This record gives sequence, structure tokens and C-alpha cells, in this order.
Amino acid sequence: MSTITGNQLLTQLNWRYATKQFDPQRKISAADWTTLEDALVLSASSFGLQPWKFIIVNDPATREKLLPFSWGQRQIVDASHLVVFAVKSNLGEAEIDALLARTVALRGGSVEALAGYRGMMVGSLVQGRDAAARKAWATRQVYIALGNFLASAALLGIDACPMEGIDPAKYDEVLGLPAQGLNAVMVATAGYRAATDKYAGLPKVRFPKADVIATV
Amino acid sequence: MSTITGNQLLTQLNWRYATKQFDPQRKISAADWTTLEDALVLSASSFGLQPWKFIIVNDPATREKLLPFSWGQRQIVDASHLVVFAVKSNLGEAEIDALLARTVALRGGSVEALAGYRGMMVGSLVQGRDAAARKAWATRQVYIALGNFLASAALLGIDACPMEGIDPAKYDEVLGLPAQGLNAVMVATAGYRAATDKYAGLPKVRFPKADVIATV
Repeated sequence: MSTITGNQLLTQLNWRYATKQFDPQRKISAADWTTLEDALVLSASSFGLQPWKFIIVNDPATREKLLPFSWGQRQIVDASHLVVFAVKSNLGEAEIDALLARTVALRGGSVEALAGYRGMMVGSLVQGRDAAARKAWATRQVYIALGNFLASAALLGIDACPMEGIDPAKYDEVLGLPAQGLNAVMVATAGYRAATDKYAGLPKVRFPKADVIATV
Repeated sequence: MSTITGNQLLTQLNWRYATKQFDPQRKISAADWTTLEDALVLSASSFGLQPWKFIIVNDPATREKLLPFSWGQRQIVDASHLVVFAVKSNLGEAEIDALLARTVALRGGSVEALAGYRGMMVGSLVQGRDAAARKAWATRQVYIALGNFLASAALLGIDACPMEGIDPAKYDEVLGLPAQGLNAVMVATAGYRAATDKYAGLPKVRFPKADVIATV
């Protein structure tokens, strides 16, 4: 165990904000970036199916190509790192079998012994859901990974900005995702806030707690 | 700043697992629970719209009522706390105006000065999206809150189990959510793992990092 205090957690979650302007000179260290990648890998997903891939775009020319498909938001090119959150576009029995094979590889046992679990997953995810519904399900899952990434970065003192304002079809094209069975959903940029980002100092806007939390 | 090390973060994210069996005797302290509620309030959302409400179900009789609508999963009644993640079911201009009013209350300025921002939000969220699409958007946002909640709990050393396996319509009925303009999406249970939960000791199943992360 390596737990933190409530005060540490809330200090960092309050420090976090959707960074509008990154310092293009400040890069996330290799060690910190590896940590964030590992945190992404550890994201929770329903059934543990991990219906996603995280594409880290380091190539400056590719980032420039993505800029016009991101409403021109400069974080795409200025941030230290850019993560494209993509989903598997046609989840099916193959992905379920891949998970079961991986489970057996890591935990022992046999795929046969997991037949009941397999049937439950196939019934829940594949049967009675068309491709669009399966993709919508996968898309919801990748938002868990986004939430995990934002919290993880904040705790490390790394700034981030989640961005839905992209043209996913153009991202797909630039990154060649459909040929890999993937579709872009949204992105997060990460790095360090510029001293000139006026949003950094503004009070965080949240509805009153009484409007957001109810206890019954 | 109250940052943590990469090692602390990954130790806790590795410690986390979807708890199958909670110790019904162990309760989360009031201080820790307040921290987790505050962490929920601080969750990120697109435009900062917070299209959600978190319903904490403490009443044992209500939990018993929800059990059959949760595939009988015992965490619903055994965990220290149960959070129902609900979304606003018909997001529209009223919610956007509420956000702008709150922004002005906290940051000063005037709603009139935010007219351009308002137009952008209305254009992106309301125009050209029917009620189902707006609800799907809100539902994706609440998964960010789930990811934040799971990471936050893990860092405090509190166990949790995210659960999509509920009947949301029945949850709506039991909790009277539609009359409040809300719909249940999924839940998370939180508390402390039972010593007898055999899943706690199993290796975490993740696909190889090379399959999940790509760098371009």
C-alpha cells in the first residue's frame, strides 16, 4: 500500500484544470511519461475487455496535420504529449476470446473452464447489440480511461486538457486507424501550463455540491 | 502542490481491482467519504457542463430493493457505500444557462460577455443533436467521473467495484429519478475487500502494453 491523504488528493484535483495554453518548451520526463502510459494500461473497463488503444502522437509533422481537425486548438501542437483515445470499432467474439486467452496466460486454468463467463460476455455485449451499439459501449469505456488519465496526471503534477473538439473521421484518416480496426474518439494533451495561461488562475466552476450529490 | 510519485500512483492502481466481495462490517470513515464526494464533484466534463448527479444510497431497505435489479450482485448491499451515477436526461439550453450563471457567480463578469461561448455550446450540444444523442453525450461524460472516482478511491486505499450490470430503468423507478430529470447509468460500490474475496489475490489481466499503446 502506498496511499495518500484526502488532502493530497483534493489539492491535486483542485489544481487540475483543462489547460488552454501549454508551455511548448517544457517536456514531460521519460520516467513520468512511462508512468502515465502504465496508468492508462491499468484503466478499468467493463469485463476487463479494454476495448481501446491509446495512440501517442510524438511526430511534430503529424501533430501539425491534426491541428486543423482539432478546431485549431494550439494544445495539439504545443503540449508535450498528445494521446488519441481510440476504440476497437467492431468488438466481437474475437476480442472476448483474446481476453480469455490472456486471462489463462496470466492466471492459469483453461479457456474451457471460462466457458460460462464467455457465454455471459457474448450474451451481454455481442448478441442483441449491433455494431453501432457495441461501438457506443466501447466509447463509454474509453472515457473511464480518460478519467483515470486526468486524475493520474494531476496527482503527478502534470497538466492535461481533455478535448472532444476534434474531427474523429479525419483523425482516423491521418493516423490510419480504420485499417487497424480502430476509431478515434477524443484526445488528451498533457504537459505543463504556460505562465501566460489566464485560465490557470481562475476559480474552478462547479455546481454547488448539494446540486450534484444526493444522499438517500 | 501536493504531488505523489509515479511509484505511489502505480502501486495503488495495481492494488485496485473490481472488488467482488466486500467486508460488510467495514465502513468508509465519514472523512474519507466526504473526500470521495468532493473528488466526484471535481470530475472533469466537456465544457465543464457536469451533466450528472451522484446518488449515494445509504438506506439499507433501498439497497435491498435494488439488489434484484443488479443481477443479484451482493456488493450492492454489502459494500460500505453505493453510488448511482445518473445523467441529466434532457440536456438543453437551460443547463447551459445554469453553467454560465454559475461561472459568472464564481468568476465575475457578465452572462452577456459569454454570449459567444454560449452560442458555441448550444451549437455543439443542442442543435443537430436529438434527445437520444444528447443523453449519449452526457452518458459518456459520466464515465469520466467513474474513472476519476475509481482512481481516487484506489489512492486513498479504498476498494471499489464499478458495475454496469444493473437495470437502469428499474433503478430510475426505485430512486424516483425521472421526476428529477435524471436517468441512472451505472453504479460503483465502495468499501473494503473481504478477506475471503479470492479475486483480490489474482494477477491483474491486462493486454500487453505493446498492444494497448502505440507511439507515432
